Amino acid sequence: MEHKKNENKANQTSRIDAFSDGVFGIAITLLVLELIQILHSQPDNGLLKTFLHNWQSFFAFTVGFITILVCWINHHAAFEYINKVDTKLMWINGFLLFVVTLTPFPTAILAEYLEKESRTALAVFGFNYILISIAADGICTYAYNHHLIEEENREYYYSYKLIYRYAIFFTLVAFLLCFVSVIIPLILYTLLFVFFAAPKEFSLRLYKIRTAKKTKRKNN
Amino acid sequence: MEHKKNENKANQTSRIDAFSDGVFGIAITLLVLELIQILHSQPDNGLLKTFLHNWQSFFAFTVGFITILVCWINHHAAFEYINKVDTKLMWINGFLLFVVTLTPFPTAILAEYLEKESRTALAVFGFNYILISIAADGICTYAYNHHLIEEENREYYYSYKLIYRYAIFFTLVAFLLCFVSVIIPLILYTLLFVFFAAPKEFSLRLYKIRTAKKTKRKNN
Amino acid sequence: MEHKKNENKANQTSRIDAFSDGVFGIAITLLVLELIQILHSQPDNGLLKTFLHNWQSFFAFTVGFITILVCWINHHAAFEYINKVDTKLMWINGFLLFVVTLTPFPTAILAEYLEKESRTALAVFGFNYILISIAADGICTYAYNHHLIEEENREYYYSYKLIYRYAIFFTLVAFLLCFVSVIIPLILYTLLFVFFAAPKEFSLRLYKIRTAKKTKRKNN
Amino acid sequence: MEHKKNENKANQTSRIDAFSDGVFGIAITLLVLELIQILHSQPDNGLLKTFLHNWQSFFAFTVGFITILVCWINHHAAFEYINKVDTKLMWINGFLLFVVTLTPFPTAILAEYLEKESRTALAVFGFNYILISIAADGICTYAYNHHLIEEENREYYYSYKLIYRYAIFFTLVAFLLCFVSVIIPLILYTLLFVFFAAPKEFSLRLYKIRTAKKTKRKNN
Repeated sequence: MEHKKNENKANQTSRIDAFSDGVFGIAITLLVLELIQILHSQPDNGLLKTFLHNWQSFFAFTVGFITILVCWINHHAAFEYINKVDTKLMWINGFLLFVVTLTPFPTAILAEYLEKESRTALAVFGFNYILISIAADGICTYAYNHHLIEEENREYYYSYKLIYRYAIFFTLVAFLLCFVSVIIPLILYTLLFVFFAAPKEFSLRLYKIRTAKKTKRKNN
Repeated sequence: MEHKKNENKANQTSRIDAFSDGVFGIAITLLVLELIQILHSQPDNGLLKTFLHNWQSFFAFTVGFITILVCWINHHAAFEYINKVDTKLMWINGFLLFVVTLTPFPTAILAEYLEKESRTALAVFGFNYILISIAADGICTYAYNHHLIEEENREYYYSYKLIYRYAIFFTLVAFLLCFVSVIIPLILYTLLFVFFAAPKEFSLRLYKIRTAKKTKRKNN
Repeated sequence: MEHKKNENKANQTSRIDAFSDGVFGIAITLLVLELIQILHSQPDNGLLKTFLHNWQSFFAFTVGFITILVCWINHHAAFEYINKVDTKLMWINGFLLFVVTLTPFPTAILAEYLEKESRTALAVFGFNYILISIAADGICTYAYNHHLIEEENREYYYSYKLIYRYAIFFTLVAFLLCFVSVIIPLILYTLLFVFFAAPKEFSLRLYKIRTAKKTKRKNN
Repeated sequence: MEHKKNENKANQTSRIDAFSDGVFGIAITLLVLELIQILHSQPDNGLLKTFLHNWQSFFAFTVGFITILVCWINHHAAFEYINKVDTKLMWINGFLLFVVTLTPFPTAILAEYLEKESRTALAVFGFNYILISIAADGICTYAYNHHLIEEENREYYYSYKLIYRYAIFFTLVAFLLCFVSVIIPLILYTLLFVFFAAPKEFSLRLYKIRTAKKTKRKNN
């Protein structure tokens, strides 16, 4: 008797989606614990003063929140076309979740060391971005190469592969610049957010440029 | 080869629902951590005395819980008619989740500063309500204007837009009154809870009033 | 144009399930934070000694875990037959989640006051059980009376109503006995766990007894 | 009137999946709280020094994360073929979740006692692995014996039963060796991770070996 694969489940990716959504949701919500901390650790000198003294905590909370939200939006976009899941994809996705789960840690570092050791604090956060890019690239490249995506969107999905590959180099450069400057990496990371805020639109534009080029080449 | 949109997924909103449910669920549950805190921080003078000395913590826990629950019920109602999701809606929803995620923070402030700086503590919580109203209005207005909702309920959905628009003004007035009084904003916020405890019934009533008016005008 | 109700959603209860599952899952997992606490607060006298000195924390963790798990199993059983959700049911379910969310708090009290103030600590936990019973009774009675359940199982569902009604009286008696004894309520709560560990089997047995009685009466 | 079982729900296991995914997701994310702790508890001597002084915390975080991720992957694999759920399975699954929920506790112990009491710390973690193996074996054996799995994959599912039975003995031996050595159990646990990183592939290989043996025996 041959072992039959479980094909009839409506959506093979539903559990990996649910688990990932859980991890994203919790990581993003745990950030507030660090914010509550400032109410306990500070000497009591009025609510507004406590706020002003801890502006870095609010800044870090916002940065951490946007980071994880952007990750989730990109995860959502990348998994939309994936319709099969195997053990290796679970491990690559697991690596992404590892970095997402870690994110509250560099966020806490950002809150506490932004003034004292701004470059190191920024570099720690930047290192996080490199890992996220590697994980995102890993998921898309693996899904593309092993035909885990819908065939009709294979060509389009190639653009996803590309944008996360670019992201690795981009975050690597930004990371190295953290050791010589504070403002330049901050600008680069803002740009990174802008690009990956809408991964679908970003990759669609890239896809159109590539298709246009191909048509040109054919016509020549 | 044209890029085909992924239309065949049973429910396009399932992942945004799951992620949001996760965030709501965690934010609402984290509130208890602040309550447990009172067991550790107090000098040991009996369980009942500890309870009585920290009635504000229980009050804040209840207020924080009801706030997030009301948000979830409204989120549930507003997303029931949404059947398409795009990147911008994810970001507006992300802003709502940002405020929901923050909610344990003003709740902790309420617990600790309700007696010391009652007006500021109330104003911080009130500011939270303004942001929630803006986010809710943003979701409904965007979904309405960009036809992300079921066409047959479009007319009805217009009432949702209206109630959250009203909420912005309502919470703004209540916020400003926090600086001159404690009791008046407390009454206003209680009213706010009563109205938005049942958003479906609230918007349905509004819808019927508006339809009745229209019919009248036509008949004249 | 009349407002059309959203009937075509495969499962109207899916979001209330997801949100509740999230809250149950988080509340049950937060219990471990209190356990980790003992590693930090104790003077350093060896791992095994720390364990022995804090046996109450392990006991409380286990009790808290089983409490929330039993709640989840009962929630699962009660919602299996519910196929419609309205705003009031959301609020009654919200009250249940309120008590579930609170549960880590009496658990922490149990861990810290079991030796010092055993009766009060037990009574606080027992009070929690009364609230849970009231909430469970509320859900089943409301769903039964407002025909939110599958009609073919209406008769059977009546038994659910009954068992949670019994539970209110049972937990009320156990609570009052907390003030005169420690052992008797402990035995009663163990019995409570045994009964509600398998709510389906429990209510099915009750259903069969009731149907048998009816048949008898008819035959007489 | 006979009580009709609720058979028409598309996926009977959806809620047990969702609840379990929630618990796995939260347990894996809570690990970061222990990591953030090191930022607060240390005297302030630079970010990099703090990192180096607390390498055990990073090690423990990674071990804890991989442990829960491996559990989730195995849970996913074992439940893929389960298509019916009864109350007893909920309790066995509940026991697994109990151990998963506990995992952040031995992880915190590993972080703090790895240098001071390495053998005890390792043994505590190893004890966790025994419990996980017993729970996993319990789920698969129960599902197999009570025909809660798809009949066509019954033969194949037997291999799952076997691998978790092996795991009990394996983790038991590793646990006992913790009291005489540190390196040998570390090697054994690494092997454990390698085997159970891909439970599907592992059990499929076992299945093929067993089928080959059977065919041989028949031919003889």
